[in-house]
Amino acid sequence: MKFNRTLRALEWVGARDGFLRIVDQTRLPQELRFVQLHDVEEVREAIVSLKIRGAPAIGVAAAFGVVLGMRQARYHTAADALAHLERIVHLLRTSRPTAVNLFHALERMYRVGKEAITAPDFNPLANDLVPRLLAEAQAIWEEDRRLCRAIAEQGAVLIQDGMGILTHCNTGALATSDYGTALGVLFMAHEQGRRFTVYATETRPLWQGARLTTFELRLRGIETVLLCDNAAGWLMRQGKIHLVLVGADRIAANGDTANKVGTYSLAALAQVHGIPFYVAAPTTSFDLNASDGTAIPIEQRSPLEVTKPFGLTIAPDGIAVENPAFDITPAQWITGIITERGIVQPVEARTIAACLGSQSPRGE
Amino acid sequence: MKFNRTLRALEWVGARDGFLRIVDQTRLPQELRFVQLHDVEEVREAIVSLKIRGAPAIGVAAAFGVVLGMRQARYHTAADALAHLERIVHLLRTSRPTAVNLFHALERMYRVGKEAITAPDFNPLANDLVPRLLAEAQAIWEEDRRLCRAIAEQGAVLIQDGMGILTHCNTGALATSDYGTALGVLFMAHEQGRRFTVYATETRPLWQGARLTTFELRLRGIETVLLCDNAAGWLMRQGKIHLVLVGADRIAANGDTANKVGTYSLAALAQVHGIPFYVAAPTTSFDLNASDGTAIPIEQRSPLEVTKPFGLTIAPDGIAVENPAFDITPAQWITGIITERGIVQPVEARTIAACLGSQSPRGE
Repeated sequence: MKFNRTLRALEWVGARDGFLRIVDQTRLPQELRFVQLHDVEEVREAIVSLKIRGAPAIGVAAAFGVVLGMRQARYHTAADALAHLERIVHLLRTSRPTAVNLFHALERMYRVGKEAITAPDFNPLANDLVPRLLAEAQAIWEEDRRLCRAIAEQGAVLIQDGMGILTHCNTGALATSDYGTALGVLFMAHEQGRRFTVYATETRPLWQGARLTTFELRLRGIETVLLCDNAAGWLMRQGKIHLVLVGADRIAANGDTANKVGTYSLAALAQVHGIPFYVAAPTTSFDLNASDGTAIPIEQRSPLEVTKPFGLTIAPDGIAVENPAFDITPAQWITGIITERGIVQPVEARTIAACLGSQSPRGE
Repeated sequence: MKFNRTLRALEWVGARDGFLRIVDQTRLPQELRFVQLHDVEEVREAIVSLKIRGAPAIGVAAAFGVVLGMRQARYHTAADALAHLERIVHLLRTSRPTAVNLFHALERMYRVGKEAITAPDFNPLANDLVPRLLAEAQAIWEEDRRLCRAIAEQGAVLIQDGMGILTHCNTGALATSDYGTALGVLFMAHEQGRRFTVYATETRPLWQGARLTTFELRLRGIETVLLCDNAAGWLMRQGKIHLVLVGADRIAANGDTANKVGTYSLAALAQVHGIPFYVAAPTTSFDLNASDGTAIPIEQRSPLEVTKPFGLTIAPDGIAVENPAFDITPAQWITGIITERGIVQPVEARTIAACLGSQSPRGE
């Protein structure tokens, strides 16, 4: 398989009559298959089925989903247009519950759409709404790309030669508009010439670590070792892990962090072994409406992901299953949160508020 | 699928011209397939390929392997017979490195064989060696069955109504001659009328928990919930787990315990959450020659178990893999070790020596 190093999880192709092109991540690593999404239902399905996944990427995909939805919609009055917009936003809002980037992106799209629709000069027949929505979605996409690079620059200083860095799930180019969050930090450190080993957990049930993270790391020539999730503690014990670095799906005001299930266990194990544990995420992953982790809803996914992964039967039919897609790592186990504005450390409500309150990048 | 509740992982069928019948555990849960082993090479292969697994069961299988090997062997002198015995024992000793029951069983078979061969009245042509070896292997099998029941009786008192009990890998009838160690404790508590929920980790890479433990628990009507290994910490956090109960492949003189990879992480997590962590194992699983866990060799198994489980490709070809089959849980994280002679608690060299030194069952 050959491909460009600048792997793009999702990209808008063409102008207002274009489409959203995504990598079907359920087919990796065997096949790099691109899929074209032409309507909002296809975008929703791609998010639900994890063809596209990763908190930043699903936010961006949903933004383009609003564009596609409103392009399909037929309306003759501003009221109709607004009703369509609300229906489309609702459709996308209910695709996945945990990652907050989805809601932030949809709020932004809704605000722009509503502003246009409720403007005195809105002409429902001119259909100039789609270009405005497309411009906003493109802006969200561009902003996410810029955020990734800024996070990577902030975090790369933590990575030293010879380190073993444990990561979980996938937080690279495939999880974002470009480059990634936690993996982006590692890409940047590697580009800066540092040499280290990344230990990638396989990340059951859907193997984002085995399928996607190893794929991305190898693409960039970074030394990679794959392990089963349950071997992480033992590798820590043997002194092979010097840093744990993960992404986030939502961060509460106090720093409690929702991320892929298994993150909680890794943070506890890092704590036991005295290993620094960092989260890398854009400030758009914070949810100040959630005062702590208990306010973050955790998606329970199908038992079949556990019992019949990719069609392979590994458990008796009908067995009860716990399959939370995420868990919540308490703030006190997190050494620091790497954002585009700087590293929040120690992780607590005060330092988070200070970071989010700062206007310019890097807390200047 | 229908089968008797008294599922037997392995059993000798017939007299001295009989064979060892095992369940091919790589086919479960889809198919309950019995396999007949007629020679020592087949026994070795069944152990290496995990058709038969579980520390007590591979010890017993190896004992019958010696019987089959010596039945095949052609010798005309005592020296020849002894050379064959040594070759066969060596062949089986090198099948798997971590579980000590294998070595204990082989030592016992070797002692009996050597005693017969070196006796003044040994007649190499009479071939009365095989019946003696078969009697010893049968005795080891019977003893393991008795040990399982005694462990279950000792441990069942720990299990209370309404508990959530987390277990790892498979430690039931399939891992032993009958009934099991950690699972045996749960079977006994259930037979005594207690009602509780068992949380079974899937146990990557080979899914002994998903494939075998859920199968055995369901067979006995015990409420079972399957989870991915990496969800265990999060379930503990939510208060669903009140006890962790696992088996052992080898226990050092100080109580450090080798068991299926992932056990170390579960013990650390139990420690963090203040949850009691028990090991259930016969005294034959202790290795007093190992003063602590550092003396126990850890088997590294094929990367393909991780990257292509049961033929399903989940990672790029050729990626480096850490695949330790076992890990070592430090004694200080183990609340107690349930043996056939009683519960060793606290777990330390002194209490272990006292337990092993006691002659009669149950420490009387």
